[in-house]
Amino acid sequence: MRALVKARPEPGLEMQDVPIPEIGPRDVLVKVRACSICGTDLHLYKWDQAGSERLRPPLIIGHEFCGYAVRVGSEVAGIREGDFVSADSHLPDWTCRVCRLGLPHLCSHVQILGVDRPGAFAEYVSLPETSLWVNDPGLDPALASIQDPMGNAVYATLAEPVAGRSVVIFGDGPTGLGAVAVARAAGASVVVLVGLSDYLLDIGRQLGAAVTVHAARQDPVAEVRQLCPDGADVVLEMSGAAAAVRQGLECLRYGGRFSAFGLANGPVPVDLTNQVIFKGARILGITGRLLWDTWYQMAGLLRAGNLDFGPIVTHRLPFDDWQHGFDLLLAPDRRAAKMVLFMDEDDVGMDP
Amino acid sequence: MRALVKARPEPGLEMQDVPIPEIGPRDVLVKVRACSICGTDLHLYKWDQAGSERLRPPLIIGHEFCGYAVRVGSEVAGIREGDFVSADSHLPDWTCRVCRLGLPHLCSHVQILGVDRPGAFAEYVSLPETSLWVNDPGLDPALASIQDPMGNAVYATLAEPVAGRSVVIFGDGPTGLGAVAVARAAGASVVVLVGLSDYLLDIGRQLGAAVTVHAARQDPVAEVRQLCPDGADVVLEMSGAAAAVRQGLECLRYGGRFSAFGLANGPVPVDLTNQVIFKGARILGITGRLLWDTWYQMAGLLRAGNLDFGPIVTHRLPFDDWQHGFDLLLAPDRRAAKMVLFMDEDDVGMDP
Amino acid sequence: MRALVKARPEPGLEMQDVPIPEIGPRDVLVKVRACSICGTDLHLYKWDQAGSERLRPPLIIGHEFCGYAVRVGSEVAGIREGDFVSADSHLPDWTCRVCRLGLPHLCSHVQILGVDRPGAFAEYVSLPETSLWVNDPGLDPALASIQDPMGNAVYATLAEPVAGRSVVIFGDGPTGLGAVAVARAAGASVVVLVGLSDYLLDIGRQLGAAVTVHAARQDPVAEVRQLCPDGADVVLEMSGAAAAVRQGLECLRYGGRFSAFGLANGPVPVDLTNQVIFKGARILGITGRLLWDTWYQMAGLLRAGNLDFGPIVTHRLPFDDWQHGFDLLLAPDRRAAKMVLFMDEDDVGMDP
Amino acid sequence: MRALVKARPEPGLEMQDVPIPEIGPRDVLVKVRACSICGTDLHLYKWDQAGSERLRPPLIIGHEFCGYAVRVGSEVAGIREGDFVSADSHLPDWTCRVCRLGLPHLCSHVQILGVDRPGAFAEYVSLPETSLWVNDPGLDPALASIQDPMGNAVYATLAEPVAGRSVVIFGDGPTGLGAVAVARAAGASVVVLVGLSDYLLDIGRQLGAAVTVHAARQDPVAEVRQLCPDGADVVLEMSGAAAAVRQGLECLRYGGRFSAFGLANGPVPVDLTNQVIFKGARILGITGRLLWDTWYQMAGLLRAGNLDFGPIVTHRLPFDDWQHGFDLLLAPDRRAAKMVLFMDEDDVGMDP
Repeated sequence: MRALVKARPEPGLEMQDVPIPEIGPRDVLVKVRACSICGTDLHLYKWDQAGSERLRPPLIIGHEFCGYAVRVGSEVAGIREGDFVSADSHLPDWTCRVCRLGLPHLCSHVQILGVDRPGAFAEYVSLPETSLWVNDPGLDPALASIQDPMGNAVYATLAEPVAGRSVVIFGDGPTGLGAVAVARAAGASVVVLVGLSDYLLDIGRQLGAAVTVHAARQDPVAEVRQLCPDGADVVLEMSGAAAAVRQGLECLRYGGRFSAFGLANGPVPVDLTNQVIFKGARILGITGRLLWDTWYQMAGLLRAGNLDFGPIVTHRLPFDDWQHGFDLLLAPDRRAAKMVLFMDEDDVGMDP
Repeated sequence: MRALVKARPEPGLEMQDVPIPEIGPRDVLVKVRACSICGTDLHLYKWDQAGSERLRPPLIIGHEFCGYAVRVGSEVAGIREGDFVSADSHLPDWTCRVCRLGLPHLCSHVQILGVDRPGAFAEYVSLPETSLWVNDPGLDPALASIQDPMGNAVYATLAEPVAGRSVVIFGDGPTGLGAVAVARAAGASVVVLVGLSDYLLDIGRQLGAAVTVHAARQDPVAEVRQLCPDGADVVLEMSGAAAAVRQGLECLRYGGRFSAFGLANGPVPVDLTNQVIFKGARILGITGRLLWDTWYQMAGLLRAGNLDFGPIVTHRLPFDDWQHGFDLLLAPDRRAAKMVLFMDEDDVGMDP
Repeated sequence: MRALVKARPEPGLEMQDVPIPEIGPRDVLVKVRACSICGTDLHLYKWDQAGSERLRPPLIIGHEFCGYAVRVGSEVAGIREGDFVSADSHLPDWTCRVCRLGLPHLCSHVQILGVDRPGAFAEYVSLPETSLWVNDPGLDPALASIQDPMGNAVYATLAEPVAGRSVVIFGDGPTGLGAVAVARAAGASVVVLVGLSDYLLDIGRQLGAAVTVHAARQDPVAEVRQLCPDGADVVLEMSGAAAAVRQGLECLRYGGRFSAFGLANGPVPVDLTNQVIFKGARILGITGRLLWDTWYQMAGLLRAGNLDFGPIVTHRLPFDDWQHGFDLLLAPDRRAAKMVLFMDEDDVGMDP
Repeated sequence: MRALVKARPEPGLEMQDVPIPEIGPRDVLVKVRACSICGTDLHLYKWDQAGSERLRPPLIIGHEFCGYAVRVGSEVAGIREGDFVSADSHLPDWTCRVCRLGLPHLCSHVQILGVDRPGAFAEYVSLPETSLWVNDPGLDPALASIQDPMGNAVYATLAEPVAGRSVVIFGDGPTGLGAVAVARAAGASVVVLVGLSDYLLDIGRQLGAAVTVHAARQDPVAEVRQLCPDGADVVLEMSGAAAAVRQGLECLRYGGRFSAFGLANGPVPVDLTNQVIFKGARILGITGRLLWDTWYQMAGLLRAGNLDFGPIVTHRLPFDDWQHGFDLLLAPDRRAAKMVLFMDEDDVGMDP
């Protein structure tokens, strides 16, 4: 089968012909229909510090995908051949103390698909049933493929309820954009998106942001205070920038909630005294997706019909054009959010 | 001033000419613009058991309203003349143990507007600042008037988050209809409304109920199970019927939440063993509105623009036509949800 | 090996000689050191309605125990030979929707040890790793054996925090007694135990109940109101009696929490209007133990040194004296709480 | 009356003879029995940066006290002459948006007793009923006086439940010591106290800390990991030291809770990525005490009899010896925790 492989410890990837993976008694073989490129995949491509820390070449990369169960192990109970599935990319061991505390998304021995084990940028991928999710058969495959990162958005946004609350999101990448859509669908009173790309901020407005703020040209705190004089009820930090952490806490109201999701390189200064303690604020560390509560919530929001991640999928390409996809995403003046690669050319032009 | 008065301990009401109320240093005099008729007012009119237990005639009735602050006491800090206000109809003493526990909506010495103290079916009403709420000046006065019962819907629905969850509502009165709108605005995956009036169920569908169930002609449990094979995530009981309590618990999923709001006459049978204990379910008693968290949430949902209680206001009448309004609501084949009475004829025909 | 078997669909049990169970790759063979008799086991013995509904003879019964891992399957990761273990008696399938919602204690396909699969009243028992718990090696085996029912007490009591709160417990069986100990250890301000046995109420006082109430001779509501004029913060219903449900709700304060754990035969009347809705109360259905959060909490309380279930173990017998144990527990004037059976005679007289 | 006054904007205090305060209709005049010295009072004495920012001399200082209601205003409902009272030192306006959100302890216009209005280091103090708390008449006056800071300890510790959880406390001042006592009383599995004073750490062990760590001589993270290999469930930061924030987060387990209470001078570096996000941790900003939930909890814990703040009161002095008290607390090698001053010499030697 064709598979996109990090073949050697150096920049770049290779499309290779490799054997279809074996499955164990509790595994499912999935024929991939669509897969999508994550920021992590860009780091792996570039083989920079973040990209070269964990993966040991050669390995098939990729962890966002959807496809069909074509073979199921003898002990698999909940998946049937033909099911339209995706996976949570963080595979817990389900047995460590953290998993047993009901927190498998924080598992001490987590394996990441396409980083610690063969990934999904391939015609087939093998996964244990315990990490698979059965999609609604009618779900657009592009949206089915991006559920892993959109699940981050769902979890970060809905870690506490947002109905009737004001929400400010720092970071205009795909997850920040997803958070705009989730906040709106869950009844946020007003959503502000702060970012650095006019192209992406424009998508944010399409998704329902009342106001967008270009952080290089405007002062986010002043803009938020104009809409919410007492500060915002909720801040979602999805950029990893130290300035965003500072500004985000500054525009939070007394008693507000701050979801920390964006990854900074090293410690950042936090004014605990004035912005957290005197404010009676809460900082919630968010990583991964709650297994499987986040996925049920996301499916419910999609079923409601008022959540549409569509505008986040800016590009649809055939799998063989993967190099073009990576080039677009790595371009200095990037004008792309989510890039979805399809195994079948017919899907590329499909009207979702 | 004109005021609608329960003059004697007998059925009926009288429009009387009475003095404009005095205000104390912490009170506000409000010139009423619109007021609306609650089920409680119908009981007071009929002077049935529920209606005659608490009120001591003569008393101006009415507790749903909006209007303008025209005089403010010397110690009032947060209300200014001209502010467009409504009130929470349950006036706590703010000093009892229950209030001090942070639960003023459950105050041990609560006074109810229009039942324990002179009400708002009048040209003017006096209220302490601590029970007033300042509306957005642009809010439709009909909607501003019905916020007290719609607040019940907000609190009952959002007592725990509903984003991405299935919600079944028993009771097609104004509060049940309000709950449909709130659940949809807050991202419920699917909303089912169970009731007994084709007229009201039709309004429920306009408000976003995916399915409505006529409880006299259909089996609510079977209908819910068809949409949600594992049961509903959330059930809101807003009818007070023993059958609805039973059916509501039966269609709840394992680990689900049941908000009890509808008032039954006396104890009802509950299968705690099978429907609560083995299910790991939660029954939440809901009364009044959280002060003031529910009002902030409601204002936020209205600001978001995806909550519209409009279809619940089925009738708009001049204040002097109050008798016609009560007649319509007391008719055997009632075809009305919320009835709003306006002081100024110009408001009656206003396109909201 | 010796095993206590429900041999035929009729009252009584038989000690039989049966083969040591096989284990699969994910199972552990446990050599039992102590086991204890649950109310469920009494129903199975009597073969009454509750006892004969689910079990299909012949089957080894028993689900409360402790012992040592003597053989571990090839895929077992977290248990080693020699570990001192107990089990949660409710074996989830870990794959159904309820399990995936993070509620395995409510699993749709739960298997109960000693009811649906061969139990622990035997020299050896085989269990999957996913249902085993590793005890502190120094834990008294009698206490290690009764953790399954004491876990019910921990979960029911600590479903919401009790530190500084008043707690009333209806039901003086072993779980109610355990709840007294847990509430005290977790800082409850005052604990009241309501029951029907002077013998058991006396144990309740030893465990820290400030007041005990004999429900046949005293009025529980009046007694509680004397200690807590505004009602109790928390009520734990562990008797299953309709009168206790009524009295328990009556002595609950506004905004209070009611844990429903005791099983009634059929629906019971509940005054939702006055005792739940107007009170703003919460009824929480409690069954089983949170996997594994309840077990971690229980281990932590035991480690703290201020939780002692010791007085609940009223009898220690050799395994072969099982008939005597059942006779004592089934006596009309029962004077026993927990009965622990030991495989080794030396353990019987051990000073815990 | 005698009163301890910050007379001029310079170091030091003066005992002066001043008029007994007036009371308004909603106020209560309290005859002080005991008062105690807070860290804030030391800053006011020294007139350093923290001490000179807010207070405008001349002003009576002091906010920790207990005493008897000797005169009550005409509109006071819940306090009677003779009641034994204390106060929460943070007086909310009860009308701002933050108060209305149910967060009066974070009031936007808070007035601090003895900083923004005349304080309690005097024979009499006047306070609004809404800020007074009625004590159990039998409560030791020394303990009654220190409830304001001990309330900080209660709130910080019990912001989420600690029963059966491991708790690490950074900071061996009176609040940190109080947190040791609260954590133990509420069933914490193991309590570790980290500090810099052998004298105070010794008191921590008396209060129930299993282990104390001298931060200048030992590595807190290593010590905690020895007791809790997976990290502590709960960390309470009560020192304000940047190193403690870093170490505290490092010794927190995955999914753990970090209460931030100690005030740092300016921003501190926080490794959000590794210590908060990947850990799925929560940082809760804690200030003041929940009104009045914290006070009810504290009263309940005291009633339970297993909470004793006694060892924290290291010194009892007559009010006129205030200078000696301040000298002891300001000594370079301070050997004192809480200093209580009594109006009546008889109380000084009282055996609590």
